[in-house]
Amino acid sequence: MEILKASTRSNPNNLAGAIAGVLKEDDKVEIQAIGAGALNQAIKAIAIARGYVAPSGVDLICVPAFTGVEVAGEDKTGIKLIVKGV
Amino acid sequence: MEILKASTRSNPNNLAGAIAGVLKEDDKVEIQAIGAGALNQAIKAIAIARGYVAPSGVDLICVPAFTGVEVAGEDKTGIKLIVKGV
Repeated sequence: MEILKASTRSNPNNLAGAIAGVLKEDDKVEIQAIGAGALNQAIKAIAIARGYVAPSGVDLICVPAFTGVEVAGEDKTGIKLIVKGV
Repeated sequence: MEILKASTRSNPNNLAGAIAGVLKEDDKVEIQAIGAGALNQAIKAIAIARGYVAPSGVDLICVPAFTGVEVAGEDKTGIKLIVKGV
């Protein structure tokens, strides 16, 4: 499954485009976010991506889960959002 | 549909319990969050609530969307998360 990384500086529209792009090839994509700001951009991107794929009859859902991520040698807990087209 | 409001100070475990509680009576619940901190607690709560309902054979999914909310007389854009048990 392809993994997209969201950060506080991610543009939600661009990330939404990337989500919709991956979902043309695959039925799901994972978005990783560490911290509230990154998660905020990721969730906005999913809401926007819903509009990108809806005209093709695809409904996007997401499943949030905790994930361990190594950042600069340190173990951090982030959130992964599995986005699926149904 | 019942609406739960998440804030920066929401305890994710308590909010997860509230989500699981509503889903015993109904098949979906809406969580409203304004701001990155509130959304962070809401998403953590959904991830935790997945563990609460999974032993009953329920899989939680969420659908994020933008929503207009009035806060102290001002119109703000928040995020609503529709959480469904499937």
